[in-house]
This record gives sequence, C-alpha cells and structure tokens, in this order.
Amino acid sequence: MNRSDDSFIVHRTRPLNAEPTPTALMSGFFTPQHLFYIRSHGDTPELPADHEVRLSGLVTSPLRFSLERLRREFPKRKVIATLQCAGNRRAEMQDVRQTSGDPWRIGAVGTAEWTGVALADVLAKAGIDETRARHVAFRCADVVDIDGEIAPYEVSISVERAMAGDVLVAWALNGEDLDPAHGAPMRIIVPGYAGARSAKWLLEIDVRDAPSDSPVQARDYKLFPPSVARQDANWDEGVTIEQMPVTSAICLPRPDEPIPPGRTTVKGYAMAYGRKVARVDVSTDGGRSWRQAGLMSERTTAAWTLWALDVDLPAGRHELVVKAVDEAGQSQPECLEGIWNFAGYLATAWHRVIVDVG
Amino acid sequence: MNRSDDSFIVHRTRPLNAEPTPTALMSGFFTPQHLFYIRSHGDTPELPADHEVRLSGLVTSPLRFSLERLRREFPKRKVIATLQCAGNRRAEMQDVRQTSGDPWRIGAVGTAEWTGVALADVLAKAGIDETRARHVAFRCADVVDIDGEIAPYEVSISVERAMAGDVLVAWALNGEDLDPAHGAPMRIIVPGYAGARSAKWLLEIDVRDAPSDSPVQARDYKLFPPSVARQDANWDEGVTIEQMPVTSAICLPRPDEPIPPGRTTVKGYAMAYGRKVARVDVSTDGGRSWRQAGLMSERTTAAWTLWALDVDLPAGRHELVVKAVDEAGQSQPECLEGIWNFAGYLATAWHRVIVDVG
Repeated sequence: MNRSDDSFIVHRTRPLNAEPTPTALMSGFFTPQHLFYIRSHGDTPELPADHEVRLSGLVTSPLRFSLERLRREFPKRKVIATLQCAGNRRAEMQDVRQTSGDPWRIGAVGTAEWTGVALADVLAKAGIDETRARHVAFRCADVVDIDGEIAPYEVSISVERAMAGDVLVAWALNGEDLDPAHGAPMRIIVPGYAGARSAKWLLEIDVRDAPSDSPVQARDYKLFPPSVARQDANWDEGVTIEQMPVTSAICLPRPDEPIPPGRTTVKGYAMAYGRKVARVDVSTDGGRSWRQAGLMSERTTAAWTLWALDVDLPAGRHELVVKAVDEAGQSQPECLEGIWNFAGYLATAWHRVIVDVG
Repeated sequence: MNRSDDSFIVHRTRPLNAEPTPTALMSGFFTPQHLFYIRSHGDTPELPADHEVRLSGLVTSPLRFSLERLRREFPKRKVIATLQCAGNRRAEMQDVRQTSGDPWRIGAVGTAEWTGVALADVLAKAGIDETRARHVAFRCADVVDIDGEIAPYEVSISVERAMAGDVLVAWALNGEDLDPAHGAPMRIIVPGYAGARSAKWLLEIDVRDAPSDSPVQARDYKLFPPSVARQDANWDEGVTIEQMPVTSAICLPRPDEPIPPGRTTVKGYAMAYGRKVARVDVSTDGGRSWRQAGLMSERTTAAWTLWALDVDLPAGRHELVVKAVDEAGQSQPECLEGIWNFAGYLATAWHRVIVDVG
C-alpha cells in the first residue's frame, strides 16, 4: 500500500479491511485515495484495463463495454459523494455486546468527487423493459464467503434509484484512476447509500424483476432489532440497509494524545442521508451542556458535513460528546444499547471521546 | 363541539387547542373529524361559503376562486396524510424543563383522506414566474400574537414543494366538509410536513422570491439546541420545522387504567417523514428487552403506521417503552434531555408508559 503505515489501521489483510486514522481522515473535505477506507469481501481481483462489463437481463439490446468505450460513448459525469461502510463505528457497539464483523472505528467513511458516466445513460442505451424491470444487480469479480456459502459479490438497487442520474459507473476518485483496492477498472457509485451498494470490480449489470438473491444482498447488510440473535434471524424480515441514519464523530482531539490546557479545536464529520445537516452540537462535559459547531459542506446531501468548534479545556479529564441534527430535526440516539444488532451495523449513537488535559 | 367531553382534552379555549384521548385516537386508521386535534393560533374565523381566495404575486395571471369555482375548474384529488403538530408530546418535554406552549400529550396528530385540488394545478393556471418565484405563502383569516406582535397567520413553503402535486387546497376530511375548527371553507394540506404549514381559513396565496417574513414563519416553528434560551435566540439560525423526525407513541394501555394480569394488547402509532416505518420495537421492562410489533400502514410515507403487540403482563408495575425504526435504520433518541428546546418542539424520544397490573 502506497501510504505511511501510521496513517492507516489495518483490521485484516485477507480480505483487506483498513481505515485511516481520525487524524488522517481530517486532512481535508475530500479524502485522498491513499487514505480512503478499504472494505473488501474477498481477495482483491486484478482485472485487465481492457476488461469488458456485460449489461443484460430485462433490456432490449444487451451490450458490452470496456472502460475505453464507456468514456467514448457516454457523457462524463462527476458526483461528490461520501461512502460509508454500514459497519462504521462497530468497535463501539462491540463494547456493548459482541457482534460479527471487523471492529471499525470512526474511519470507515470517506468523501470524493467520483468521475464516470451515469448508469441511467448506459441503461437507456440498452433499453429497459419498463413493464417488468424492478431491480438492477451488479455482479463483481470478488468472491465472498457468507456463513460458508461461497459466491461472487453481488448486490442490487431498485430501477428507480438506478435511473436517478447520480448513480455512476465510475473509474476515478478525486481525478485519479481507481486503485485496484477501490475497484479498478470500473465500479458502481450509489450516492447516499451504504458503501456495500457501490460495488467494486464490476463484471455484469443485470436488469431483473426481483432483488438479487445472492448471499450479500439477501443475508448481509440487513438490520435486525437488539432482541434477534443471528441463528434466529428470518432474513426476509431484516431491513435492507440503503440510506443510513444521521451520524457524527469526533476526529480530533484523540483520546490517546494528551493535550495542554487552554484552547483546543474539536473537529469531525457529520452526515444525514438525503437531508442537510442543520446543526452539530458539541459538549465538553459528557452531554450536560452543548454548544453549536461551525459547519463546512458542499451543496449535496450525499456528502458529509465537516464541523469544528474551539473550546477551552482546563487541566483534567473531560468527556467530549457530539450529536448532529438534520434539517427535519432528526438527531441520534444517546446510547448504543437500544440500536445494538448482531451484525454491528449503523452504530450511530452520540460519539464520545475522553481526553486528558494537562 | 360535537363530541363527548371525555374523548377530547381541551388545553385552552381561546384559542381553541384540544386533542383526542389516546383511546379515542386508536378508534381506527383514519381519525374522524370530530376526534381530530385542533391547533388554533387565534379565534376561529367564520368565513362565508362563497368566500373567494386570491392568488397573486409572481404569476402571469392573478386569479380569485371560490370553493364552488375550485371544484368546477380543477380535477379533484384525494391524498392520505397524517397531520402532526410540531408540539406533539410537549408535556413530556416540559417534565424535563419548562418550555413555552400548550402541554400536548400524544394526541396532537391525526390521519385523514383529504379532498381538494392540487395546488400545483391552481398555480399552473395562474402561471408562475419561474425565474423569480421561490416560495409560496399562505395568508389566513386567523390572527396570531407572537411575542406581542399581532399579525395574520401566514406561512410559506418552497415552490418545489408547492408544485409537487400532493399539496392540496382542500375542502374535505374523510369525505366530510371541513368543520370551522379545521379551516372551512378551504385550507392547505402539505403532506409530510408539520401541521403548521397546512394553513387553515385560506385567504390568499402569494408567490414570492423569499420565504414569508410573518412572525409565524420567521419566529415560530423553529428548532433550537438545548443550550439556547428564547431571549438569546437568533431567529435566522433556527431550523424551520417542515419534515419531522421518526416518532412513535403507546396509546393503549393507559397509565391511569389498571389492567388485569395476563394477556393485553399494546398499541399505538409511529411515523417517519418521507420514509417507511420499517420496524416498531416494544419493551415491557423499561427498555432492557424488546419485541417487534405488527404493523398496519397505507402505501404512503405521509401517513402514520399503526402497530400492535400482544404481551403477557404479570401483576405488578411495568414500564412499557416503544421506539420506531425507519427504512434507513434511523431510530429515536432514548431521552428528551438531549433534544429539549425552549419552544418544546419535536419531542420524539422513546415513549414510556408505566402501567399497574393486578
């Protein structure tokens, strides 16, 4: 990996799952590719540059396209979007009670300007069978093991979402061609949806009358209540994770780095899927009192809002807390107990960091 | 009022603010007009049946219409929508710390099929100046007193929202002509928005380049953080309440009605603005364990979901708790402290009812 070791936290190497440190994550509004979190479900495929994606299923004219043909035949689109893993902040949820999955801290999230073509344009060229088409599946070159079932990575989204114009077949991140770890040569980007739908190493696009029945779509990335154990899960009853709840995190200061008394800047990110972040409240006394942070955002609800607040901290131990409020007044749960689930998804409670000053 | 006294809780008579009891609220999916909550900001206007509404501002052809002309000249539309006051459940928030406003319990909410014409059709007939028009204001016949400023009730919504097709100029609720208390002869219905935008006793529709600067729009129905006191509020910084957060409430059993040991049905409502309610979790032990309730809904995210769960309760005192989860996995805060605000809006924490059994 082309990065300094101490800016990346590697949870495992096969498959490669790694996230930037909170300090690295705060390097700017856009996350550089070499610092972008990597969530793999299998070994990283190595596809040739002239690899062709097939588009078939409920379409009039199935077609195949290489990256070169995609760039030549369709208008180029750029979309600013934050990708976040549904398991981001799972480590905190595992402190409540054990869950499956890697212990992601707060860095399984990143923001980029993605370059590609609109999936809607490609589907329009193939001609969708509008009376029957309901879902668009993405089959990929990586191979996953879900509870012992080995299958190609495959997910699907609704035709309405696929045709909305902002879903991309993408080849670049912040102007750089995709690295192999991020899905080269072509991947899907579904702005405002959990990262799992933004399929990497794209092999096939398949237009169908039903959601994908692959193990990733049918039995992974589903939300269950705290009361359900994995062995009792009725997978059809779980909520398919697409949009995600309002969330926020404190990236700086870090709990493991003592800071001197006096003025310090608290900063981090917040995100509300499909709505603007209206407000970020920060507490330095464990949630007893709150102040509003300053916000920095782009004009899209598909990207995060960065926030910062200068606070004065006397010597001693302090509990910093953050919560975000979206434009509908929607906020976050205080604690993780009520949203705990066996797969450790959507750990979006208030984020707390204890710092030692002095 | 055409109703039995014991099914309605009257908070004040001038202006008239009243809500059905939780038992009355659970009479069915659709709330009868005589049980629908009444939120008035001034005395109830009595407008004649041939009253004419004026439409003017940034339009090509200003027009006037009576109810009779409206019914004759535009296609009739029916929309199922829940109206909820932004102050619903304020009484619980006032238990944390005093707020302004009436102590609404859980009944400032109701669901109806509304009959009217699409505001979009009326605006299209007048011809909107698309280069300048940004907001549509509704001026009404009731007179409000906001912190000593006396003015006609007036609110506004964006042109995009106004033109979406589901916003109505309505004259009937569940097939009955509107009662005077509900805005006769014509009112606005903005599905999925806080009740305050569904202006009653409509006098004028005014298309503008800016939001209404009336006291109701500019200084009421705005959300502030717990840290801000009314006298320190910078009104431009408050979040205008339109869509509202995920919420839920237990309507039955009631805390004031002892129930026999054994099987009892817990039931209530849940609502997620713009998203489906995916799950309702019910606890009978104060939130330590949870079970999923059965759901009943219509095919619109603008209406509530009713839920019910049979539980076995032994003799003794039990704390029932409910929380809803929407299709994005968004849930509710556990407690009201973190979302408290001086005007007592959006009290959408977990709802708790203590019952005595035996």
